[in-house]
Amino acid sequence: MKDIDAMVKTVIVRYGELALKSEPTRMRFERCLREDIKSALNGLSFELRRERGRIFISTSSPRSVISRLVRLPGIVSVSPSVEVEARIEAISSAALNLARKSLSGKRSFAVRTSRVGSHTFTSRDVNTVVGSLILKKIPEIRVNLSEPDQEIFIEIRGERAYVFTEVFSGPGGLPVSTQGKVVALISGRVEGAIASWLMMKRGCKVIPIFFDARPYADARAKRLAVKIVKFFRAVEGSNIHFLVVPYGELLGVLSKNVQGPLICPICIRGMYKISEILADEEKAEGVVTGEGFDDLNSLEYLRILQYGVRIPIFRPLFSFDEGRIEKIAEQASMREFLSYPAGQSCSLFPRCLPDKVSLREVLDAEEKLNLNELFRKIAKNAEKIQKWSQWI
Amino acid sequence: MKDIDAMVKTVIVRYGELALKSEPTRMRFERCLREDIKSALNGLSFELRRERGRIFISTSSPRSVISRLVRLPGIVSVSPSVEVEARIEAISSAALNLARKSLSGKRSFAVRTSRVGSHTFTSRDVNTVVGSLILKKIPEIRVNLSEPDQEIFIEIRGERAYVFTEVFSGPGGLPVSTQGKVVALISGRVEGAIASWLMMKRGCKVIPIFFDARPYADARAKRLAVKIVKFFRAVEGSNIHFLVVPYGELLGVLSKNVQGPLICPICIRGMYKISEILADEEKAEGVVTGEGFDDLNSLEYLRILQYGVRIPIFRPLFSFDEGRIEKIAEQASMREFLSYPAGQSCSLFPRCLPDKVSLREVLDAEEKLNLNELFRKIAKNAEKIQKWSQWI
Repeated sequence: MKDIDAMVKTVIVRYGELALKSEPTRMRFERCLREDIKSALNGLSFELRRERGRIFISTSSPRSVISRLVRLPGIVSVSPSVEVEARIEAISSAALNLARKSLSGKRSFAVRTSRVGSHTFTSRDVNTVVGSLILKKIPEIRVNLSEPDQEIFIEIRGERAYVFTEVFSGPGGLPVSTQGKVVALISGRVEGAIASWLMMKRGCKVIPIFFDARPYADARAKRLAVKIVKFFRAVEGSNIHFLVVPYGELLGVLSKNVQGPLICPICIRGMYKISEILADEEKAEGVVTGEGFDDLNSLEYLRILQYGVRIPIFRPLFSFDEGRIEKIAEQASMREFLSYPAGQSCSLFPRCLPDKVSLREVLDAEEKLNLNELFRKIAKNAEKIQKWSQWI
Repeated sequence: MKDIDAMVKTVIVRYGELALKSEPTRMRFERCLREDIKSALNGLSFELRRERGRIFISTSSPRSVISRLVRLPGIVSVSPSVEVEARIEAISSAALNLARKSLSGKRSFAVRTSRVGSHTFTSRDVNTVVGSLILKKIPEIRVNLSEPDQEIFIEIRGERAYVFTEVFSGPGGLPVSTQGKVVALISGRVEGAIASWLMMKRGCKVIPIFFDARPYADARAKRLAVKIVKFFRAVEGSNIHFLVVPYGELLGVLSKNVQGPLICPICIRGMYKISEILADEEKAEGVVTGEGFDDLNSLEYLRILQYGVRIPIFRPLFSFDEGRIEKIAEQASMREFLSYPAGQSCSLFPRCLPDKVSLREVLDAEEKLNLNELFRKIAKNAEKIQKWSQWI
């Protein structure tokens, strides 16, 4: 592919769902997408140009550009292309060059041309001219329109034409930040990150919150969080910040003062309530968690956890089985996270496991220990981390 | 297939995720599944027998049994089978009979035997004996173990053996009612039913609530609701009830007394709040809605809708795009619903469309009109409908 890369200088970016929106909404979304792209390509040299329905990126490092863009919500697909003037000779010559590289070892090809604008030739003319040229110049190659070994695409738009052979899928969905902001609980397990990814794909900006439970958790939880935040930055841009909440103090209080079965529910309630406070400060409209049905003993228990929390809690994985979660992780290039040995990250386990607890007991314990006060104090001590190096 | 049906008298039912659970949980789940099956087969003649990991149903109408069971959450797959004694002669004879019917027009076959219990023969012995017999008796047929045109399955369990050629997939997941109860908003659009289906698959019992907005909605909304309730009964059993809430009065009050942009948010808030009251009466632990990102103008708006609602709201479709929703509808045999012309079912549309509304305005309007009182009154007037004929 190296030879091809030397010719390729333009990356075509296609986006989908935006087309469905009204004109002002679409324009706002396109603007967001362009900003997201610029942020994702931070550090690479590139120039960005838009036309209705497409973004074109001129760059000297197309492979790096593409590897970053295929993760961006809102992008349907990208193609590294050779850009030429929209004249039939220039197109033919570029297509032949690309064909020489990409058809090596293959037996059949097809030329597929699409065209927007007014030209002295039709798409079909281009197919015929380019196809004939390739047949003439490359020995033993055949045309096969239904099942070619290799397709050669030509996209003509006004005065420019783009020749390419590869189409890489992006995640689709809507650009990050078009739909508002949420915070996400990413402590300990990877599901929080996968849930966040689904919200990002629907256009949410997601601010990760890591509850640092040391000394009641070992360093693995933090190591996983580092990986997850890195993933967030790849999707949301390198200028996002995240929040670290010192949670050891609460666990110390619970460990000493409440019965085992009350520890887990109060610990989770604390995370919800502190997230609510932090969300308000961040002007975020909800809390995302990776909780599924299997994590919660019962719906009754969930109701205890959520009692008194006013901010909407989003649980995008709630109705999924494991197979479905793995599939999403795969699509999001998060598969490696699934096998990460986060293990049982809380040292109070299994003493803390909730048995039959009642809302009454939970609220009584919280009141006796004045925990709402402590939650507020802990929220105040949350660290807002902007610079990567501050935390790693 | 008619000839085969004459021999088939036993349906094998396989269930999956249950195996992962602890012994008492598994037993409770299996009991639930058996009850669900009995309820689903209401009206057919059948006998049910369980063995560890399998349920066997003897019946004279296997096709009807199967068409009902493939919809039941918790069931991984079902097979109509010929049941014989676990002797090699009886098995061979049954397999040959089945082969004569099922191999007609096919070129190759494979015999696949599995065995639980102690026998004087191995699975491999059975494969060999049955395979040879079929080769001898059926002209021009060949064995092809890797890609046979037709597989013949033999499942031997203790003193009984089951011979079959077909495996129909069920939805998997967990049996309905094993995970608690929720209510679901099914008014007007099919998404509420699809969201409910996902909750059923995770083991929830779902009680549908239909908000009857007449005279502000036409009869189509009710017709769709009838179809949806029918679907619920096919999955949850014919003894489920549903709730009909007379909602026209509220819309009348809103139409006369509040500004257009406030109608929609207050109407939805009313549904949430009334559902909360009804859920409490039903001892249900949450409210399910089919709302997706695209239905809600923004997360900020969602927060206004949900303000003051204490019961958890589950939105299983929240992070899905349309393609994913269609796929689920397909799996659940709900595809026809998607094309149902529910249209714009509210006659206040588009006057009611929310523009820039603030929580303050919404709450002020609710207080001025004493709507919490009205919500409670409407909830009290909800009709609990048990008998199908009462409503249709």
